[in-house]
Amino acid sequence: MGVTISDIAKRAKVSSTTVSRVLNDSGYVKEETRLKVMKAIKEMNYTPSAIARSLSKSETNTIGVIVPDITNSYFGEIIKGISEIAEHNNLNIVLFNTDNSLEKELKAMKSAKEQRIEGIIMTPGFGEGRFNSDYVKIINNLNIPIVLVSADIKFINLNGVFVDNIKGGFDATNLLIKEGHTKIGILTGLLSSDPVIDRLAGYKKALQENNIEVLEEYIFNGEFKFSKSFEITKEILKMKNPPTALVVCSNMMTMGVVRALTESNKKIPQDLSIIGFDKLQYLDMVGLNITYIEDSPIKLGQSSMEMLCNIINDKSKHSIRRITIAPKIICKGSEKKNRQNV
Amino acid sequence: MGVTISDIAKRAKVSSTTVSRVLNDSGYVKEETRLKVMKAIKEMNYTPSAIARSLSKSETNTIGVIVPDITNSYFGEIIKGISEIAEHNNLNIVLFNTDNSLEKELKAMKSAKEQRIEGIIMTPGFGEGRFNSDYVKIINNLNIPIVLVSADIKFINLNGVFVDNIKGGFDATNLLIKEGHTKIGILTGLLSSDPVIDRLAGYKKALQENNIEVLEEYIFNGEFKFSKSFEITKEILKMKNPPTALVVCSNMMTMGVVRALTESNKKIPQDLSIIGFDKLQYLDMVGLNITYIEDSPIKLGQSSMEMLCNIINDKSKHSIRRITIAPKIICKGSEKKNRQNV
Repeated sequence: MGVTISDIAKRAKVSSTTVSRVLNDSGYVKEETRLKVMKAIKEMNYTPSAIARSLSKSETNTIGVIVPDITNSYFGEIIKGISEIAEHNNLNIVLFNTDNSLEKELKAMKSAKEQRIEGIIMTPGFGEGRFNSDYVKIINNLNIPIVLVSADIKFINLNGVFVDNIKGGFDATNLLIKEGHTKIGILTGLLSSDPVIDRLAGYKKALQENNIEVLEEYIFNGEFKFSKSFEITKEILKMKNPPTALVVCSNMMTMGVVRALTESNKKIPQDLSIIGFDKLQYLDMVGLNITYIEDSPIKLGQSSMEMLCNIINDKSKHSIRRITIAPKIICKGSEKKNRQNV
Repeated sequence: MGVTISDIAKRAKVSSTTVSRVLNDSGYVKEETRLKVMKAIKEMNYTPSAIARSLSKSETNTIGVIVPDITNSYFGEIIKGISEIAEHNNLNIVLFNTDNSLEKELKAMKSAKEQRIEGIIMTPGFGEGRFNSDYVKIINNLNIPIVLVSADIKFINLNGVFVDNIKGGFDATNLLIKEGHTKIGILTGLLSSDPVIDRLAGYKKALQENNIEVLEEYIFNGEFKFSKSFEITKEILKMKNPPTALVVCSNMMTMGVVRALTESNKKIPQDLSIIGFDKLQYLDMVGLNITYIEDSPIKLGQSSMEMLCNIINDKSKHSIRRITIAPKIICKGSEKKNRQNV
């Protein structure tokens, strides 16, 4: 890569130590000498090596970001949030995409450590039985500041920025109640998933606070799947006493519900009101306006990067930092109650 | 960051040079001595510093990836392709998101150079008058291997992996002709965009090869906008002699066409056949099956990373490397010709 400090030193007729002092702005250098060095640097088109700097200061100004699926725009938005704050703090981002593989996740953490990265922001992959004590031990042994973002786990004693899914479930259900619905169902995913458990808890809480009975027959398990939700919706349409509104716990499942309704010539919200979770790109453009609860992934990314900066700057790493961010409701009309049915 | 090579040397009672030799697997070290050093490394929980290694070998094993919009899953897929190949070659990725800002793009390149990154893969942002000679000069002066991927520019003399948009426009039009259409329109974007110019050229070529006259009144400029395409489609429906099929040059414009047709109670493909460009997530799930031409961004990412590896390994950087990848057609049925109209 060409020019070195000693090349500069020769040209400026000073010692390498003097050049280093000028580059690092440390130690005493006569102004005249400084100008000579700067001139040589300019003439030789020298770019100070960040690596050399990082060795001398033992700082790399680089953090690692580990995500399970870079093709999912949800993580793209998290990274956008992270990089906004990283830029303000002159930090570079080394990116690791794990394809939801535990092996790649552990390899990424090891590689980050080898690169002397200053900290890690990570969304762990999902999967049952993954977050055991071995996993936590590995993370703790890394001895690098680490912040989880939008992780599906809460029980682990790690720094992190989490989503308030109880509030998400509560707000969705509460909005339907305010619209006049009393027969409200919920389409959950796998009940081993923390977000689902929390959304269901929020749903129940809203019903109970409004003195509406929680009915087991209104709680459906769509397993996070399009096909399963499609089938369940077809069954709901056949029920004697069907719910008039449905809280749907993922965007794939919302698609299944929408498809089943349109195929049966049923209208939203006239025949069934819906509130989904997560943005559904493009749907409103073709006239399907589905109200949804959104995580604000950009904000999650920003908060996680701010947290990591605080941890890096505050060298006392004893306390665990945790933030929970409330999701937002984006109203599009699908939550309305059909006035004729009131 | 704790343990250094000299700490290891003290504990193993050998010289630092010997420890370095063991770590880098270079020079002669007695097996007995090697085992002593390894034992000390293990006991002291030492992770060799990639930075120290990179300085000694003057290789960082890191490449830079610069994209204009990380929240767009198209770029997420490109990065997925890049990271697959990077992983096989033990390369790390430093990510820069430019928000389509020229200033941030230039800053990212400068930062990549400072990090002594071994090469850059970049999708430049878009915008008129951006790719002038100053821009090319800056890139050339970087003196780092650089590969453009899916860039909207072809005239610049830089390495790159490009999309064959002429073939895309040709294939879309040709498929409609094979379906029996003779009255085929095209909805273009801004005519300053290279992909649009190429798609339009492919469209004209297919018509001419099939002895179908190119009619100016069948060439519409949707300006890449949802609203503009919506209006144009409404106008098309009012035409005396409307096209029976439409090639639509971006996914946003496809949404505008679909919305205008559904709002007017027109059916696809019975009332108008459509072939779009770029994937439209979720649409088929709600029963709107739009045929489209796809870039294969994962493949673009893989090819660009393979090209960069070749350039880095082959130090003779004199020849410019360029690959053009053909897009694929994903058939969903919207291209069919309504048999009643034949």
